[in-house]
Amino acid sequence: MRIGVLTGGGDCPGLNAVIRAVVRKGISTYGHEFVGFRDGWRGPLEGVTRELGIAQVRGILPRGGTILGSSRTNPFKIDGGVEKIKSNLADLGIDALVAIGGEDTLGVAAKLTDLGVNVVGVPKTIDNDLGATDYTFGFDTAVNIAMEAIDRLHTTAESHHRTLVVEVMGRHAGWIALHAGLAGGANVILLPERQFDVDQVAGYVEKRFQTQYSPIVVVAEGAQPLDGQMVLHNQELDAFGHVRLGGIGQWLAEQLEEKTGKEARTVVLGHIQRGGTPTAFDRVLATRFGLHAIDAVHEGDFGKMVALQGVDIIRVPLVEATRELKTVPVERYTEAEVFFGS
Amino acid sequence: MRIGVLTGGGDCPGLNAVIRAVVRKGISTYGHEFVGFRDGWRGPLEGVTRELGIAQVRGILPRGGTILGSSRTNPFKIDGGVEKIKSNLADLGIDALVAIGGEDTLGVAAKLTDLGVNVVGVPKTIDNDLGATDYTFGFDTAVNIAMEAIDRLHTTAESHHRTLVVEVMGRHAGWIALHAGLAGGANVILLPERQFDVDQVAGYVEKRFQTQYSPIVVVAEGAQPLDGQMVLHNQELDAFGHVRLGGIGQWLAEQLEEKTGKEARTVVLGHIQRGGTPTAFDRVLATRFGLHAIDAVHEGDFGKMVALQGVDIIRVPLVEATRELKTVPVERYTEAEVFFGS
Amino acid sequence: MRIGVLTGGGDCPGLNAVIRAVVRKGISTYGHEFVGFRDGWRGPLEGVTRELGIAQVRGILPRGGTILGSSRTNPFKIDGGVEKIKSNLADLGIDALVAIGGEDTLGVAAKLTDLGVNVVGVPKTIDNDLGATDYTFGFDTAVNIAMEAIDRLHTTAESHHRTLVVEVMGRHAGWIALHAGLAGGANVILLPERQFDVDQVAGYVEKRFQTQYSPIVVVAEGAQPLDGQMVLHNQELDAFGHVRLGGIGQWLAEQLEEKTGKEARTVVLGHIQRGGTPTAFDRVLATRFGLHAIDAVHEGDFGKMVALQGVDIIRVPLVEATRELKTVPVERYTEAEVFFGS
Amino acid sequence: MRIGVLTGGGDCPGLNAVIRAVVRKGISTYGHEFVGFRDGWRGPLEGVTRELGIAQVRGILPRGGTILGSSRTNPFKIDGGVEKIKSNLADLGIDALVAIGGEDTLGVAAKLTDLGVNVVGVPKTIDNDLGATDYTFGFDTAVNIAMEAIDRLHTTAESHHRTLVVEVMGRHAGWIALHAGLAGGANVILLPERQFDVDQVAGYVEKRFQTQYSPIVVVAEGAQPLDGQMVLHNQELDAFGHVRLGGIGQWLAEQLEEKTGKEARTVVLGHIQRGGTPTAFDRVLATRFGLHAIDAVHEGDFGKMVALQGVDIIRVPLVEATRELKTVPVERYTEAEVFFGS
Repeated sequence: MRIGVLTGGGDCPGLNAVIRAVVRKGISTYGHEFVGFRDGWRGPLEGVTRELGIAQVRGILPRGGTILGSSRTNPFKIDGGVEKIKSNLADLGIDALVAIGGEDTLGVAAKLTDLGVNVVGVPKTIDNDLGATDYTFGFDTAVNIAMEAIDRLHTTAESHHRTLVVEVMGRHAGWIALHAGLAGGANVILLPERQFDVDQVAGYVEKRFQTQYSPIVVVAEGAQPLDGQMVLHNQELDAFGHVRLGGIGQWLAEQLEEKTGKEARTVVLGHIQRGGTPTAFDRVLATRFGLHAIDAVHEGDFGKMVALQGVDIIRVPLVEATRELKTVPVERYTEAEVFFGS
Repeated sequence: MRIGVLTGGGDCPGLNAVIRAVVRKGISTYGHEFVGFRDGWRGPLEGVTRELGIAQVRGILPRGGTILGSSRTNPFKIDGGVEKIKSNLADLGIDALVAIGGEDTLGVAAKLTDLGVNVVGVPKTIDNDLGATDYTFGFDTAVNIAMEAIDRLHTTAESHHRTLVVEVMGRHAGWIALHAGLAGGANVILLPERQFDVDQVAGYVEKRFQTQYSPIVVVAEGAQPLDGQMVLHNQELDAFGHVRLGGIGQWLAEQLEEKTGKEARTVVLGHIQRGGTPTAFDRVLATRFGLHAIDAVHEGDFGKMVALQGVDIIRVPLVEATRELKTVPVERYTEAEVFFGS
Repeated sequence: MRIGVLTGGGDCPGLNAVIRAVVRKGISTYGHEFVGFRDGWRGPLEGVTRELGIAQVRGILPRGGTILGSSRTNPFKIDGGVEKIKSNLADLGIDALVAIGGEDTLGVAAKLTDLGVNVVGVPKTIDNDLGATDYTFGFDTAVNIAMEAIDRLHTTAESHHRTLVVEVMGRHAGWIALHAGLAGGANVILLPERQFDVDQVAGYVEKRFQTQYSPIVVVAEGAQPLDGQMVLHNQELDAFGHVRLGGIGQWLAEQLEEKTGKEARTVVLGHIQRGGTPTAFDRVLATRFGLHAIDAVHEGDFGKMVALQGVDIIRVPLVEATRELKTVPVERYTEAEVFFGS
Repeated sequence: MRIGVLTGGGDCPGLNAVIRAVVRKGISTYGHEFVGFRDGWRGPLEGVTRELGIAQVRGILPRGGTILGSSRTNPFKIDGGVEKIKSNLADLGIDALVAIGGEDTLGVAAKLTDLGVNVVGVPKTIDNDLGATDYTFGFDTAVNIAMEAIDRLHTTAESHHRTLVVEVMGRHAGWIALHAGLAGGANVILLPERQFDVDQVAGYVEKRFQTQYSPIVVVAEGAQPLDGQMVLHNQELDAFGHVRLGGIGQWLAEQLEEKTGKEARTVVLGHIQRGGTPTAFDRVLATRFGLHAIDAVHEGDFGKMVALQGVDIIRVPLVEATRELKTVPVERYTEAEVFFGS
């Protein structure tokens, strides 16, 4: 068989580990041939490929990013996109695709399956918000990076009797904030899943200062205050009603400084959460995903996505995988609230 | 309620996170009081305690080890041990115990339960070999430390065209070797679960040298060669038939050097695998174990152990928890063999 | 002797290592007694102290921040400040002070020396911009944190064919940017010492994209474009002419995106550069500074600051120490320019 | 000019950073051409080369080891070795060599200079024991790795009330032990420069146990007890009088366990100290060494070695560089003794 591989969407530590496992097992166990498509769906759409054999995957296991490049190209939003993909795959003699990506990339994969393209999906989202798998790779790395930053911030916060607000990734799901906050001993954790009351947060912060320690507030970039609380401060909104200065972390730090009378500072972790070498958890998970994906390809079990369930790698239909966003359930948040404000 | 807490067996990153979660939730949510017992079962046996309140658990989340100390004391191997424990618990007004430990510590807990002591167990084994839980805390930290060492060793091996043998923990179960080897891109992984053929290992090593990369061999301390292979080298055994020089890693490196004609060196990771700050995965797991253990205590659900199943914390009977050693199943080893020797 | 210790200004990894060394050697070698002053010069000004003995300095060597707290209080800017300090020191029976801090803290120390207070200074600036010492502690830690962030960002930049602008500390001196940029393999490094031409930077960025790698631009927070370049974009300035959105990094990324047509993103490292456990270099330097500072106190050699010269710790007059800012000399910048734009 | 580059002796983090800087500046500033010689002096001796241009040095800055390989080949110990080198250099059209290595490699370089070969040396020794430079690259990385291991071992030592003996590199000079021990808060540090009294060490260990903390003993692999102390235990020596079990660390742990009655364990850090990504200090130092070495080549200033003096890179005659081993001076050891035994 001749198999194409592509990576789509935001990059994530572990992508290269998947590619390596797919190629290594495909060649050594099954005798497959591989073609690397560049930059997600742009690769098959425009027929842009790169060589992908044993030599190309050597040494990439510990490397972040993706040797194939990535993009957010969606062939279904481009006139004739699907036809181009099908003809390019035919021209290149591709029998099947391994598509590694998140909701968007796998959504395309699911639709292409219906149109007769042989695809196996590998789930990728640093936010851990895909419903059909216990975990996605990249998430554990992001959480560890955020936790290490929080570890560092505790001492500087305490030396200056300041509040430190740490803004982490998570537009729609708060998994990184929840886990990094729990692991880092945050004083408050704020998620997109539940609007927060800025006065309650200020109360937690004040309670923490009474212990002679200083508070660390972990806030997901998508977290929002209660309706109305941000309107009260509309001088900080731009013409479109967006927060003007630096995002929710910055806004919150200013609020907390004003309400508690204690200095507050913000750190926005940003892209360092998605770069760099993966943790062991992510390397093992990504490797196992890759090994099982190529098994599925070999068996002709297309239209599926590999997924983690407990300690097992299973297969689920691609359509199921992208059906709903996995957000933080209320009981996980309640669990964490024990540590708030003290 | 007045609750005793103890940690037994080898220390493990995450023990302090459990203690902190138990105490924080016990006090803030349930109004419990706590007594810390020192050094595992020696604490209740000899009535040696230390204060354990909110102040004592501040700042310990990121710290390895256990603030309570540990030991391998087994009251059932001491005359009148159980009676002493029961009378000490009565004298100290202890209503229930949270026992954090591995097979031995939890085995004692299970037996004490039968004798009317109120115990809830929290599983701890750096080797990840307890059957009733998907993972134990400390394991992920150990695997990451071993992986980082392997990452470092790749470049020195290649610069000198040497084989590097890395001996990791695991007397009876090879989970650390399997995961660290997979994550570190090892050339061969050797586990206690399956005797290895030293000639086959030498073959893998030679095959790797043909790629112009150098081989890393990850060997669990409890791995053994095929029957007879070590006897051939009995000058290296002491009077009891034990390997004389430094363990299986050292023995294997000498064999590989002889068989392949290429220099080989050994690194024994030893105690650095169990020390130091826990990873995010272990801090979150340990914290959740602690929170759920104190819930079980509060509900009077004794004789149980908390356990991880998928993403959920569940409770299982203590006796079940210690029934059998969870070794690496053959399919997980086969999965990894794809990467051997190339 | 009875000796007061204080830490002033922004916190820095290594402060606790200094405190520990001062106290350990002072007590065990010389039999001194110690008093900890809280929060920099606020401590002696308001007579706020904390116990400072062997027990208080145990375990603090690897901890960032300062157990004494810090502030920017300047007694010379407060009516009667100096008199209050002198009378508090007399009331507390303090014979001498060890003042650990940067330009401001040591400037106060120098003036107090002239007024008859016995002070020995220990230099501290994360920016490494004190003229009288080869290095200050905290700098090496900050550079390593920034370098690790840059290491992580390379792969994410390349996966998305983006420019990544990393803003690091350094308002007046670009040492952190220079060293982190050199160590991290930055494509361009921009310092406060030299205004940059945004078109030349865009040229470097474009040249880098031709190599199929992606550019990392390291910019010190105090770096500025050539006169006039920012005025052209005055919609991004606030009423005071300050950059409105997020600082120079954000401004630069927007410029580069516009000029090169390639996406650009910014990461502002902020407070994580000054928090957390110190590197070995900083722990050794801080420890040696502490040991030599207490020697100076013991010898009655006041009005001096300890400093690093080559591998030796020497003493220099406090006034000299704070005379001028040590900026990056032009030959060090030229040295680094070899790597720009390719 | 056409310039050969080689790396000899044990590998060291930073070698690749030197190679990259030499090649980048040589090509972009001076228009030189480069030839990579493989495996130290074996390369020019046997005429084994590899391509060395801009493409080959991309991405190697953060990588440990050396892309050129290394060996301990000494052409002066091989019949006709020097003649072969000279004729190979002539055949390959090599005008000058950059030799990166330690005492042996640079010793060869010095002798070849006398024989008319154009060589510039770059000092490399992980042990930091070359007299003519304040620091060598690789040392800072090794010290940080050892310190992180010690940090980890503190908590496990304390949990089990054990002594932990950490054996670090250093056969003839104790710099790694001194700096890692100081940075890691060791209880005792033992160097090759001074024989230790095992009873005094046991005394320090006992004193430490009285503090309720546990002792960490850092011992350089070349440290030795007082004459006679090891003979008393000759059952532990092999036929050649060498320590039979695992080196000085293992011997010392057994002695301490016997003398103090407290369990003791050993960790031998071994090769992980020399592998892996360099610290910022080492990357900057190695890069600057490389930049200045190619300047020297370009200026025809042969027979010199680059060296660090304070913050400046200087040039010293190669013969001077290798004249004497830089051991730890007594005052640096005395400085550290303040922390022993408490």
